[in-house]
Amino acid sequence: MPEKLRVVPLGGLGEIGKNMMVLETDEDLIAIDAGLMFPDEEMLGVDLVIPDVTYIEERIQKLRAILITHGHEDHTGALPYILRRLQLPNGRLPPIYCTRLTRGLISVKLEEHHLLSDADIRVVTPGERVKLGGFTVEYVHITHSIPDSAALAIQTPAGMVFHTGDFKLDHTPVMGPPPNLSRIAELGRQGILLLMSDSTYADTEGYTPSEQVVSDSLDRIMANAEGRVIVATFASLISRVQQVIDAAKRNGRRVFVTGRTMMSNVQMALDQHYLSAPDNILAPLERMRGLPPERIAVITTGAQGEPTSALVRMANRAHRYIDIQPGDTVVLSSSPIPGNEVLISRTIDNLYRLGAKVLYSRIAKVHVHGHAAQEELKLMFGLTLPQYFVPVHGEYRHLVMHSQIAKSMGVPEENIFPLEDGDILEIDERGAQVAGHTDADFVYVDGLAVGVDSIVLRDRKHLAGDGVIVAIVPLDKHSGKPIGRPDVISRGFIEGSMSEGIMERAREVIMEALDNPQSPTERGDFNSRVHDALSRFLYEQTRRRPMILPMSVEV
Amino acid sequence: MPEKLRVVPLGGLGEIGKNMMVLETDEDLIAIDAGLMFPDEEMLGVDLVIPDVTYIEERIQKLRAILITHGHEDHTGALPYILRRLQLPNGRLPPIYCTRLTRGLISVKLEEHHLLSDADIRVVTPGERVKLGGFTVEYVHITHSIPDSAALAIQTPAGMVFHTGDFKLDHTPVMGPPPNLSRIAELGRQGILLLMSDSTYADTEGYTPSEQVVSDSLDRIMANAEGRVIVATFASLISRVQQVIDAAKRNGRRVFVTGRTMMSNVQMALDQHYLSAPDNILAPLERMRGLPPERIAVITTGAQGEPTSALVRMANRAHRYIDIQPGDTVVLSSSPIPGNEVLISRTIDNLYRLGAKVLYSRIAKVHVHGHAAQEELKLMFGLTLPQYFVPVHGEYRHLVMHSQIAKSMGVPEENIFPLEDGDILEIDERGAQVAGHTDADFVYVDGLAVGVDSIVLRDRKHLAGDGVIVAIVPLDKHSGKPIGRPDVISRGFIEGSMSEGIMERAREVIMEALDNPQSPTERGDFNSRVHDALSRFLYEQTRRRPMILPMSVEV
Repeated sequence: MPEKLRVVPLGGLGEIGKNMMVLETDEDLIAIDAGLMFPDEEMLGVDLVIPDVTYIEERIQKLRAILITHGHEDHTGALPYILRRLQLPNGRLPPIYCTRLTRGLISVKLEEHHLLSDADIRVVTPGERVKLGGFTVEYVHITHSIPDSAALAIQTPAGMVFHTGDFKLDHTPVMGPPPNLSRIAELGRQGILLLMSDSTYADTEGYTPSEQVVSDSLDRIMANAEGRVIVATFASLISRVQQVIDAAKRNGRRVFVTGRTMMSNVQMALDQHYLSAPDNILAPLERMRGLPPERIAVITTGAQGEPTSALVRMANRAHRYIDIQPGDTVVLSSSPIPGNEVLISRTIDNLYRLGAKVLYSRIAKVHVHGHAAQEELKLMFGLTLPQYFVPVHGEYRHLVMHSQIAKSMGVPEENIFPLEDGDILEIDERGAQVAGHTDADFVYVDGLAVGVDSIVLRDRKHLAGDGVIVAIVPLDKHSGKPIGRPDVISRGFIEGSMSEGIMERAREVIMEALDNPQSPTERGDFNSRVHDALSRFLYEQTRRRPMILPMSVEV
Repeated sequence: MPEKLRVVPLGGLGEIGKNMMVLETDEDLIAIDAGLMFPDEEMLGVDLVIPDVTYIEERIQKLRAILITHGHEDHTGALPYILRRLQLPNGRLPPIYCTRLTRGLISVKLEEHHLLSDADIRVVTPGERVKLGGFTVEYVHITHSIPDSAALAIQTPAGMVFHTGDFKLDHTPVMGPPPNLSRIAELGRQGILLLMSDSTYADTEGYTPSEQVVSDSLDRIMANAEGRVIVATFASLISRVQQVIDAAKRNGRRVFVTGRTMMSNVQMALDQHYLSAPDNILAPLERMRGLPPERIAVITTGAQGEPTSALVRMANRAHRYIDIQPGDTVVLSSSPIPGNEVLISRTIDNLYRLGAKVLYSRIAKVHVHGHAAQEELKLMFGLTLPQYFVPVHGEYRHLVMHSQIAKSMGVPEENIFPLEDGDILEIDERGAQVAGHTDADFVYVDGLAVGVDSIVLRDRKHLAGDGVIVAIVPLDKHSGKPIGRPDVISRGFIEGSMSEGIMERAREVIMEALDNPQSPTERGDFNSRVHDALSRFLYEQTRRRPMILPMSVEV
């Protein structure tokens, strides 16, 4: 009986974010990454979205490890929410493998959730091999928009699996060595059964530029700006922080850091010597006062217009230390995550209203993204020469486009599997096929609740659109029949002037609906009659359909 | 006493959309455009947003006309909602001036609102002059992404005002002549007091490409596609429809039109000879069956992912006549309006899931926008040589960037006024200044209501985020004291499993809150005690703050 390998994406395939991939044999199971995604506008009230790990829970005795490829939240952010659910039969949390900077970033998050002391995080050096049951994993150094990123070469009983993680081929990275192409080529020559490769920018022609482009821009901006230069970026983009520090240093500016996560990450990266900040160039915000503006640079969170971020507080004149003034230059060193465009745009406009000049990726080269474009993806096929291919990380169209690239690079069409979350791909020496599907729905995190169900979201959508009407119907406790006048209140439905007349008539509509010769036997019957009559009346009057909550009370 | 001109933007300055500009003297008032904007994600349940015309209403006896520059909804869409409010003292609706195609598009909209028979629409030919009280208006032909677009040269008692409308300088437009640069130059030589110029793309370097670029792309796509070619665009983009018809004709395809507004507009444009569709190339959808796919082209609405549009119905397998199949090519011939990115992205992915190939502006030259880039804006200054400048149409940053262009072209800084909606600019021969501010808030249209107030929206936001709790507290009708067990229900708050225990304990929390030795005198006091206790309890338990509606009922 040949060894069968199961490949089960729990996140990141068919949508962007919450990346998580399972590899499984009859004896062992490992998970690659455990990311989160941010809710879209229809996920009302939801704080964040994580993968459904039920599939792993049901096989918990086989779980050997969670392998993290790099420190971005869409690959690590679900860890605080899933670790306890993935407690091993021996009572311990599953080991997490990652590189050194990734450990630092994960530790900051786990500490916030009081999970760090129980977690078992093991640092892997690229080149080193780790045996995990029947799997042997090697971390292979690769480049992305965060240092210490890794691809994974996983020897399985069925053959070698190569997972790129998120990557671009940056030959002149800001930190660390260029990608280890020669090791990847060597693995390719030895034979790769299955390639899983980053599809996020599979719709983009050509090559993705090196991070060095941004260094040049920052240098020019810091040299020419007459006032302060305030750079907003992702808190995990440690190499971008280094670029800002370097550009500030070359231009005689001191650097101030603001934003809670940014400050934690910078401190961690300094402690671990990932960031170098010579000559005490970093200073606490309280020291900014008195320094001439042309000697100031600021690093902040908020490049996505996040409502509570430091940059948005500045734009709203609500930051404790920084008042935006004419002469300030604000640099948004990121590209908009889809869905954030309106928030970002509002932030830019508010900064302009305060007199700042704002530079963003549409009008200046202040950001390059971290994902391979089409020519780099082709190069990856040229190096790995895989037998099978599964495109990972991307919306469905990216997976299809990446599949087309695979085909153009000689992978046989029947060996290419554009899976979606929950698909179960089985590979053995006789071939590969999608053998089933497991639940891999979005799991919503809202406040302290993990797993908000879809009825709650459907109700919120209803409430958001047309508001709510509560109708209280008094029932005689002896006869069970309606008596007296119903009470009706509304919220989020209709404005004052129009409201009074309608609410008054709504009471009459309720009384008419209940004034029925047949004697009803159940409360539910009252309620549904009130609901239907009110719903019809309000729609006729307003063309809206508020949520109607009839409540009968015995008096 | 020198004649004073007042310039009052009621929309379109500091935000994109709902364009409306007022010009006013002591005797006369004219409005330029009356557009709508679509709600952003925070305007929950709102259908659309129109300008506040209170300023005009208060001066209704001076209103001489509404001048429409072109037929796009952000310049015409508010007409059905404001015309009745702007009834003249003589009982008639104010005259609307516009070019011929614009009249056709406005008529379709007014007919839908049963306003066409009462409306007074007057067609103006470019070059013709119209006297409106002390104003004399000349329509000047210009190019934009819709035919029959006009700039306005308005002779006022204070001097000549030139308003560009929306424009780009397309020397090879798909329909109609190129922009009348020589007339603009002549007006400039005669002396322009005030230029108001389109700022929408003031952040973009260079020149905007001609519409011809799209013709070439469509031709290539129709020639190479093996299956049907389905082109989605704005229903008002009549010239794009002509481009699709022409490309289909050259490639032996018949053209089918779907989408309600698209069908109305195409019919109107055919009737008015704006569209030419020779050889019965257009056919009704029922005839598509049986025709080979390579002989079919479809024109549809839905390029912005609008949930009820024909294209989105196709993507969701819910279109009556068109089932998307492998081999179909879908072209999104538009660029995303900010805020629509997620809807568009979802539509593209769903089309890919059905096997279609999708071409959109990020990956193919299937759209060019209709607004002047920086070099064209400079050229406009070179032709008009204005004394004063007000940038129009754009978010605040665009107005600032356009102001910088004005300065670089020699307009004195003190003569440049980046206004925002509601600012009142006064110009006379002694100079210009912002002399005041009037209300120019968003007016929300929701169902049949025009003017949803901000409390309703605030409540909807609250409901959308954390849902609602209704708590019914029975009071003894004799003693006025709470008796019996309160009833608590929730919607949109919390899912089943967590809910029961919390709701049970919430009842106890309410009873404790009411079990107070002091004898309260008012119902409101009960309600606020219930509200506060419940709010505190639920936040502790869930970290959420649902809307709490306590209702006391006498039993």
